[in-house]
Amino acid sequence: MFSRKIRNIPEAMSIRFNQMVYEKKKQGERIITLSLGEAFFDIPPFCFSEADFKQGYHYTDSRGLPALREKIASHYQKSYQGSIDPDSELLITAGSKIAIYMALQCLLNDGDEVFIHEPAWVSYTEQVHLLGGVPKFFPYWEKVDAFEAYLTPKTKVIILNNPNNPTGYLYSKNELKLIYKICQARGIFLLVDEAYSDFVPITSKFYSAVNLSDTKENLVVVNSLSKNFGMSGWRVGYAIGHADFIRQLLKVNQHLVTCAPTFLQIYMSQHFDKVLEITLPQVQQLLLKRARVKKLIDELGLFVLEGDAAFYFFLKIDAHNSMEFALNLFEKHGISVVPGIAYGENCHHFVRVSIGTESIEAIKEALSVIKTELVSTPLSLVSALA
Amino acid sequence: MFSRKIRNIPEAMSIRFNQMVYEKKKQGERIITLSLGEAFFDIPPFCFSEADFKQGYHYTDSRGLPALREKIASHYQKSYQGSIDPDSELLITAGSKIAIYMALQCLLNDGDEVFIHEPAWVSYTEQVHLLGGVPKFFPYWEKVDAFEAYLTPKTKVIILNNPNNPTGYLYSKNELKLIYKICQARGIFLLVDEAYSDFVPITSKFYSAVNLSDTKENLVVVNSLSKNFGMSGWRVGYAIGHADFIRQLLKVNQHLVTCAPTFLQIYMSQHFDKVLEITLPQVQQLLLKRARVKKLIDELGLFVLEGDAAFYFFLKIDAHNSMEFALNLFEKHGISVVPGIAYGENCHHFVRVSIGTESIEAIKEALSVIKTELVSTPLSLVSALA
Repeated sequence: MFSRKIRNIPEAMSIRFNQMVYEKKKQGERIITLSLGEAFFDIPPFCFSEADFKQGYHYTDSRGLPALREKIASHYQKSYQGSIDPDSELLITAGSKIAIYMALQCLLNDGDEVFIHEPAWVSYTEQVHLLGGVPKFFPYWEKVDAFEAYLTPKTKVIILNNPNNPTGYLYSKNELKLIYKICQARGIFLLVDEAYSDFVPITSKFYSAVNLSDTKENLVVVNSLSKNFGMSGWRVGYAIGHADFIRQLLKVNQHLVTCAPTFLQIYMSQHFDKVLEITLPQVQQLLLKRARVKKLIDELGLFVLEGDAAFYFFLKIDAHNSMEFALNLFEKHGISVVPGIAYGENCHHFVRVSIGTESIEAIKEALSVIKTELVSTPLSLVSALA
Repeated sequence: MFSRKIRNIPEAMSIRFNQMVYEKKKQGERIITLSLGEAFFDIPPFCFSEADFKQGYHYTDSRGLPALREKIASHYQKSYQGSIDPDSELLITAGSKIAIYMALQCLLNDGDEVFIHEPAWVSYTEQVHLLGGVPKFFPYWEKVDAFEAYLTPKTKVIILNNPNNPTGYLYSKNELKLIYKICQARGIFLLVDEAYSDFVPITSKFYSAVNLSDTKENLVVVNSLSKNFGMSGWRVGYAIGHADFIRQLLKVNQHLVTCAPTFLQIYMSQHFDKVLEITLPQVQQLLLKRARVKKLIDELGLFVLEGDAAFYFFLKIDAHNSMEFALNLFEKHGISVVPGIAYGENCHHFVRVSIGTESIEAIKEALSVIKTELVSTPLSLVSALA
């Protein structure tokens, strides 16, 4: 009855675990929630005028509200030195998820391969499946300079998440230039998801892929309001690319989405700078919290993959199976993390820990439990279950 | 470079014409806009509380905000006697466009046929193309009782738009029962788009497809806030179906959309009844306006396809080519309509006229111009161009 593609894709693992959290909490149970892909910022509510409502009740330009496109372009210029023409190189839509999906839809024919650097956000893989493409992985232990050996003549797109969710790894300018050069030489598209672009410690340097090329040939950059602005519930994201590419994307957007909510776009075009002014210091606070948690991790003798950006850790759980481990942690200890296997085929032995919403004390408590679990559970038993 | 599917799909024709309108108006030109798929209601702005903002900034349940799901289910019960379990048979997402797309994605394998009754909303066809399916048409001159002869063993879905955009045709209870019976017998899914469900004159009777089956087997009904509530800019729509189907739809929604904007869902869950109370009388006003325009059409000796619902007319333009005719009308007379060809392969000789936004005087003026154009343009020349 259902299509083959749909039968073969799983639920988004992070959403599944967060649904479990939601249900336990409804029953009054205490859960230390380290599974949520959100940071909770203090953002004041701004006002809507009657005119905003009047306009907001109706469709707007399918490319996005012109005033918001200008704000985004100038933000990329000021913050990341990236030059974007807001009229031709930018499209705003209902979140970066659908932006990525539609971008891939513009590129993939059946059987085309999409290479994703592990660990990678779960929906990249399933979106590729839904589009008839073949997801492939650069294993998490490889660096960019080893990527070329993996590519095949069927490779059509490479996806990087910079900074990376879940490791917090920041790709350097040189790494990005190297991979883009390979893409250009082979006619491969480079899709860079920069959703966490502001979650970078002041001691590090974020290099936006927008800077890789003036014309943005073979390049798609996506970003959103969900993470940097702490407004995931608004579902507003955008894609940047060559004018020809954006024209193709526009067609799909017209048939799938029409436009992102006008009302919310108006609000953001008016309060863009003010919201950022408020969230950016909170982002830096969160990064300091991340550094403190990293110290705790080191002190406990736990191991995480390299990275200092965003608000996640990809934590090694030795030879444990990530699904069993996460379920056990949830059921036995009321701690929610996301199983590593959701982030790539080589990631069984990791879990994702998000520090966006819990206090440092609660995180410390959870890490100690994880440490105890790793030490006390006989590995042989766990491996047998895996 | 671009995927085959994307190269083959056109822009949404209605959006293309409305973009032309937008640009002319920016230059200060007067345009009689009969191309817009919107009605402009007077809806007062309600208030957002600080708590709404706090919650609204974050993700919500991927099935939709529970409170809004309950509102929708009770609306279907009260208004259309349709019984829906809000927990298992309903999913709210970012507009009914993406709801229809994802529903089709749950059903179609490559090469599966989707039958659409002409004239049909442009995006059905292109969504089917994007999903690797094959769009087929029941010609506009056929009634439901002739449909079965068209079906083939590859037919997987039948799409009806009830009431129909652009004719305003209302399918009767008997017609719907007949087509559903055929679907059940052949294992075909019936997808009914009820976006204009409240745009029905009090003298007619709307029968929701939700009533076709208690379990909603082989059935998907979609609807939205865009038309009935006059809030197209909010991009909130929903799908109703069998619990197993909604579970599949949920997976896709998680990977493509996450959720409809939380903020807007909160607002609607609070003000659902009040907004309807305000818009429904305005809907009836618009239907009276439609009846008046229909009289003008008859008086002018123009011909439209059967229907008295929604706020469109599908107007016959004799042997003229719809694209040429619409472009000429726009360039020469500043009147925007949508070419009929966008609504199905047999619809070259029609244009869609929307009466949602212009005054009766402006509509009358435009219809006279259309009449004159039909009489004055030598058909032989037009046919030669076609």
